[in-house]
Amino acid sequence: MARPKRSEQTREALITTGIEQLSLHGYHGTGIKQILDAVNVPKGSFYHYFASKEAFVAEIIRVYSAQLLTQLDDFLANSDESPLAQLKTVYCLMLDRFSSQNCQQGCLIGSIAAELGNQSELCQTAMLESVAKSKQVVGALMQQAQEAGQIRNDYTAEQVTAVFWATWEGSLLQMKLEGNTDSAKEILFLMLDGLLKP
Amino acid sequence: MARPKRSEQTREALITTGIEQLSLHGYHGTGIKQILDAVNVPKGSFYHYFASKEAFVAEIIRVYSAQLLTQLDDFLANSDESPLAQLKTVYCLMLDRFSSQNCQQGCLIGSIAAELGNQSELCQTAMLESVAKSKQVVGALMQQAQEAGQIRNDYTAEQVTAVFWATWEGSLLQMKLEGNTDSAKEILFLMLDGLLKP
Repeated sequence: MARPKRSEQTREALITTGIEQLSLHGYHGTGIKQILDAVNVPKGSFYHYFASKEAFVAEIIRVYSAQLLTQLDDFLANSDESPLAQLKTVYCLMLDRFSSQNCQQGCLIGSIAAELGNQSELCQTAMLESVAKSKQVVGALMQQAQEAGQIRNDYTAEQVTAVFWATWEGSLLQMKLEGNTDSAKEILFLMLDGLLKP
Repeated sequence: MARPKRSEQTREALITTGIEQLSLHGYHGTGIKQILDAVNVPKGSFYHYFASKEAFVAEIIRVYSAQLLTQLDDFLANSDESPLAQLKTVYCLMLDRFSSQNCQQGCLIGSIAAELGNQSELCQTAMLESVAKSKQVVGALMQQAQEAGQIRNDYTAEQVTAVFWATWEGSLLQMKLEGNTDSAKEILFLMLDGLLKP
């Protein structure tokens, strides 16, 4: 495999640092300068890589989402758990990861959605696409869990996924606010073992 | 009644404008300067009113939350609907209000929680207190609805309220992202008429 070009490496480094900084400080709290400084890139060359801060953040959303989906696919390909157990494992793993980051980096997309809403068309499009893709994977798992009699089937998999998704995003706000995952974990199990039970 | 002092009026105007700007632009996206300009207050005198931006935002959170609670109390005092119908009315009214603001001003506390988490102790304390107070009122309604056989009672009112709260906050993120209240409304009724049904 050819070694990635230097400019490609720099672009990737900008995105990686951008994901970290945005997760911690949000859209308006993250300055391009601090990211460039961290990656040791001169200020003038930012526009060599991205057309604008908006375009940069939209790309970050896409990369972040693709990374999560790859991790999820890898996990599912190697798991022989039941669909419901897979859902629990996936979400508990995410909570564990957030916990190891002091509960201050929740779902990047949820945080940017809270801050920007639909104010940036570029970022909105990237977020809507990312959410749709992730919901497809979670929705497929929900449907398998419904077919296995593990999740109630008086609503479609899509409806159940929509409620579950909203509950998850809301519980992450609470996690960030409280600084621990206790409530988020309780709410997760109240949903999967309680309200969504057949 | 004595007329409020001029400085008290200015303080209130700063808070009112602060609520609007923070709801739209978030913590880091809201500059003190733009608020002072809007209220016609010279820059130097901000610290006459508030010790810091953090203290200002913490006060905004308290005032915003107290206003919502007063509106909720007024509504409940004048309503003869059933507890479940009251819950539906209250949340639909909030969605109508958000809708009239182009769905870009969701729950101020949820948005600041997403952005700041526990990074500012002053704001965190104000948010935790506000959430606890609101949950108490909603929790009492949930309990009445449980006692009236309108909401499932296999979980405590506190547990049901915790899940409902998270779902609501998450659905508001979706509202901001999508720019309409369709999903939020669907999720609201899926909870109250579906997953939380006895």
